[in-house]
Amino acid sequence: MLTAHHDGSPLYVLSQTPALGEAVRVRLRVPDAVTDVAWVGTRSNPDREPRFDAAVHLGEVDGWNWFEASVVVSNPVHGYRWLMVMRDGRQLWLNQRGWSSIEVRDADDFKLVATNAPPEWAVGATVYEIFPDRFARSSHAGDAPLPEWAVAAEWTDPVARTWPAQSQQFFGGDLDGVIEHLDHLVDLHIEILYLTPFFPSQSNHRYDASSFDHVDPLLGGDAALVRLVDAAHARGIRVIGDLTTNHSGTAHEWFRTAMADPDSDERSFYFIGDDGDYETWLDARSLPKLDWSSPELRRRFIDGPDSVVGKYLRAPFSLDGWRIDVANMTGRLRDADLNTDVRRTIRRTMLDINPDTVLFAESTNDGADDFQGDAWHGAMTYAPFTRPLWSWLQKPGSPGGGGIGFALQQVPTFTARDFFDAQRAMGAGYPWRSRLLTFNALDTHDTPRFATGALPGTVPVAFGLSVTLPGEPVVWAGDEFGLTGETGEASRTPMPWTSQAEPDAAAALASYRELTALRREHPVLATGGLRWLAVADEALAFARESTDETLLVFATRSGESLEVDPGAVPGEAEAVVIHGDAALSRQASGALTLSSTGPAFGVWRLPGVRVPGADA
Amino acid sequence: MLTAHHDGSPLYVLSQTPALGEAVRVRLRVPDAVTDVAWVGTRSNPDREPRFDAAVHLGEVDGWNWFEASVVVSNPVHGYRWLMVMRDGRQLWLNQRGWSSIEVRDADDFKLVATNAPPEWAVGATVYEIFPDRFARSSHAGDAPLPEWAVAAEWTDPVARTWPAQSQQFFGGDLDGVIEHLDHLVDLHIEILYLTPFFPSQSNHRYDASSFDHVDPLLGGDAALVRLVDAAHARGIRVIGDLTTNHSGTAHEWFRTAMADPDSDERSFYFIGDDGDYETWLDARSLPKLDWSSPELRRRFIDGPDSVVGKYLRAPFSLDGWRIDVANMTGRLRDADLNTDVRRTIRRTMLDINPDTVLFAESTNDGADDFQGDAWHGAMTYAPFTRPLWSWLQKPGSPGGGGIGFALQQVPTFTARDFFDAQRAMGAGYPWRSRLLTFNALDTHDTPRFATGALPGTVPVAFGLSVTLPGEPVVWAGDEFGLTGETGEASRTPMPWTSQAEPDAAAALASYRELTALRREHPVLATGGLRWLAVADEALAFARESTDETLLVFATRSGESLEVDPGAVPGEAEAVVIHGDAALSRQASGALTLSSTGPAFGVWRLPGVRVPGADA
Repeated sequence: MLTAHHDGSPLYVLSQTPALGEAVRVRLRVPDAVTDVAWVGTRSNPDREPRFDAAVHLGEVDGWNWFEASVVVSNPVHGYRWLMVMRDGRQLWLNQRGWSSIEVRDADDFKLVATNAPPEWAVGATVYEIFPDRFARSSHAGDAPLPEWAVAAEWTDPVARTWPAQSQQFFGGDLDGVIEHLDHLVDLHIEILYLTPFFPSQSNHRYDASSFDHVDPLLGGDAALVRLVDAAHARGIRVIGDLTTNHSGTAHEWFRTAMADPDSDERSFYFIGDDGDYETWLDARSLPKLDWSSPELRRRFIDGPDSVVGKYLRAPFSLDGWRIDVANMTGRLRDADLNTDVRRTIRRTMLDINPDTVLFAESTNDGADDFQGDAWHGAMTYAPFTRPLWSWLQKPGSPGGGGIGFALQQVPTFTARDFFDAQRAMGAGYPWRSRLLTFNALDTHDTPRFATGALPGTVPVAFGLSVTLPGEPVVWAGDEFGLTGETGEASRTPMPWTSQAEPDAAAALASYRELTALRREHPVLATGGLRWLAVADEALAFARESTDETLLVFATRSGESLEVDPGAVPGEAEAVVIHGDAALSRQASGALTLSSTGPAFGVWRLPGVRVPGADA
Repeated sequence: MLTAHHDGSPLYVLSQTPALGEAVRVRLRVPDAVTDVAWVGTRSNPDREPRFDAAVHLGEVDGWNWFEASVVVSNPVHGYRWLMVMRDGRQLWLNQRGWSSIEVRDADDFKLVATNAPPEWAVGATVYEIFPDRFARSSHAGDAPLPEWAVAAEWTDPVARTWPAQSQQFFGGDLDGVIEHLDHLVDLHIEILYLTPFFPSQSNHRYDASSFDHVDPLLGGDAALVRLVDAAHARGIRVIGDLTTNHSGTAHEWFRTAMADPDSDERSFYFIGDDGDYETWLDARSLPKLDWSSPELRRRFIDGPDSVVGKYLRAPFSLDGWRIDVANMTGRLRDADLNTDVRRTIRRTMLDINPDTVLFAESTNDGADDFQGDAWHGAMTYAPFTRPLWSWLQKPGSPGGGGIGFALQQVPTFTARDFFDAQRAMGAGYPWRSRLLTFNALDTHDTPRFATGALPGTVPVAFGLSVTLPGEPVVWAGDEFGLTGETGEASRTPMPWTSQAEPDAAAALASYRELTALRREHPVLATGGLRWLAVADEALAFARESTDETLLVFATRSGESLEVDPGAVPGEAEAVVIHGDAALSRQASGALTLSSTGPAFGVWRLPGVRVPGADA
């Protein structure tokens, strides 16, 4: 895999936040061994009509020739691809799916995005996901009376796995409980705390809000959220909430009014027929779907500083952003598709209040065309990372649950090459910018826990990939203690605070801390380039690169060794191991070999990339 | 290539024009040799959330197992793909790019389209393209005085190839001249006559309209168009016009008013700065770009029966549809993209006047996402057919012109496998319905003529593929006489009516007539399924299939023979050659061999496909 390379990182794209109309310098590096290039340049598609810009040769260094072209950002999302014309007339195209000798599709182009840049603090930030009922009980927990629907549970009770008990079982975690454990997040080098919904509802998961007007008193109410955000900010941790824009609960004050009074404003918020029947999220009767053609719904929920979206970003709450639930279905039903309008309105409201906020959206399949940069900064998706990862590192027959989105809930078995192919195919539709804010989750509150059916010794390999591939590393609370759970419900285990000192939990935590520290200490993992070096059945290797440093990453599920072309890794002689106990050695033939005696995840630090004549 | 198969044709999709909400039966055929299937069904994506529907086994016939699933059309464009889960757990996906063992992207799904079905007469219809100035002069030609810009030419003069002479050289063909040669079109089995613009302008190509209010008097005026459409209809030929929605000419009455009067309605029709500078089509100062944010422009041009779009579809003109010029750029500039709205408005106007009309749009690259069925019925594009065809069948170094859209105007050299890969990759984004109305052009008035640099003997191979692959066969006037021309300008040669009896021209014409007759006599070529049988470096073979008949097609540029798995072609023993002199033979091993002694295009007729228990 010693091939010419380009990606969206600063090594290759000299303006990361271009303006519309700006000329952006973009670079391609080509191995010395490729000597028959007749022309190099870019193909853009301004206003959907192709345009070619020739590149100039910057020079050669460390075995690579560097070329640079200037691309004018003509549209808010400006696609471009590289073309190398060889002396024999072959035309070789490079886009986000790699090299092709036949023509390629626009959707896979590299993309410059001229709108709505994400806040710097959110790029490649490590996310910690908390499901409030299961995280921690403070001394205030239980102050508010238990509602009728709730069935009180002891912290050590097993998690209910059948409906409706699974939604009613109430462990009573609260926001002050989160505050009490913020130092745990600091020790894990967490940068973003993502809270699943904190609004009152009729379930423990709270995705069936009964109001958006205040924080659930069972969690400590508005004041507790204010305390939590303040305490998190004091520790350098940002906090984001979770909004259900696709539906509310049937107990929501809007829905109750809508059903009671056909002449009410709220009637327009839902799809309610004359017979009183209504549209829902899939077949869940408790989750009536919202109708975004209603201007009053927009005003109350998403549009302007007094909307729900706006209110919690402002003082005293001062949330740092939102994660949008079921964003993929929001505003979509039959022949209506208001999704673009809804997401842009949400982001406009946020920009008006505080541009330094982040907007993630759940879209667990191929949602790339919703993530072109106009509103959502990144995706909570399972297509480009989570599912390929499971397919490579889970035991055959591992529980697939429903939450990850495997077909028929069965996990197919992949080689490392399949993992590579799948992450590239399913990631190629995202602009680089969106990819850096897309979740690299092993699992979430909706899925089985990764550790449950993982091949022996591969959890550190999986989380290692989460922290070293482009995207947001995600820790689903409890993973750091080695928790298991074979379904999305079973994975919502209360945090094992009392057993965290036990050897297995302590070892898991140490591994997680070491890997999140790696991410924190090496900014190249957040924003550097990604260049694949070798892929085989059992192992893979890639480099994350900037002018400051190069990290060489090796992952194997079995200990298979991997050969890497030495020309692909300039500076290898200066490599220093910074994580893991895999071996990097040079053969008599000159080839580099990465090896280990079993499942392994290794990282080496090398010098940064040198670019000839670069002033960047 | 004996693989399980599905496509959008009636063999596999039992409702070709489904309504929103309709349950459509879709079928998959799987070779008997595949015995380890554990589950078969479809994956849809209603409102962007995956849904799986299991298929039932219909039975086995002729070596194939047939499965059927029911897919509810939940959205106006409803994507679906097939999934086969094998006994060993592998998950195999089938979409419009073929089979994949890793997850695939939504854009490549098969698609059911619930809106805007094309007229039946237009599906797979053979198109004849006429550039009026160069087709034929009637006795009325020259009645109208020559305008100042025009430079009169004799019919036998060489075509000017430099600007501005190339636009001014005036040969004086007219619409009555077309009428006089309609029997030529009948003999060529033409079903749609496509006229490049007939509005007055300041050039011979007329893409710089000076008015849309009447037909150019130089062509015979309104009355001549009425006569032409009547005469064509009398012969069973439909007629479509050509509209420039991206721009007008600087001489257009709208533009002149806009420039003269900043307070005029027309000022809003263009992008004119305070300094009088204006946006254009690319760098052509004579072609000012239209601003579709103007409601008055919409009213006059595209919206309603009195608009330009509407007027010529109504009596007395009664055109059968439009081809839209530069549709890819229409309504797109910087951060504005009104394309969807403009194209839907055009189609709505057409539907209000006469639903039995067709709407083609020029979009010569990857425009698939504009062709999802909401407005454009088919594309005049070069990406899925024309460029791959040139790359396979042109001599190395053949003139690429600018008009075909090859990078740097150079034609890369392809194998037949590359042709196969490229047509599939670039066609996979189109719904089957749109693909059937997409132009399979060898060339057009904007490109060099295919015959100019074709490998010896391959013009019939190329046009054979045009008439046998799904899409609209296209004859650019003059191709049927073997004309050449190494640029888009040079290809606008006046028709050689006086030399059509010469041996080469007569032979070319006979070959064209035989191939268009094939298309006319075998409806399976218009609407049947497409199943690839074998692809090698120099040759390819596929079947077009329906329950009525199967056509087996073999194309080679050199005479390379091709082996086909006999199981892939049930009924081969009954094959009857219906075109060409290639050979189909069965080896002792049982394999079928397709062969010839040089470049060849052969077609055999076989029995129709049998489906177990089918009532379709």
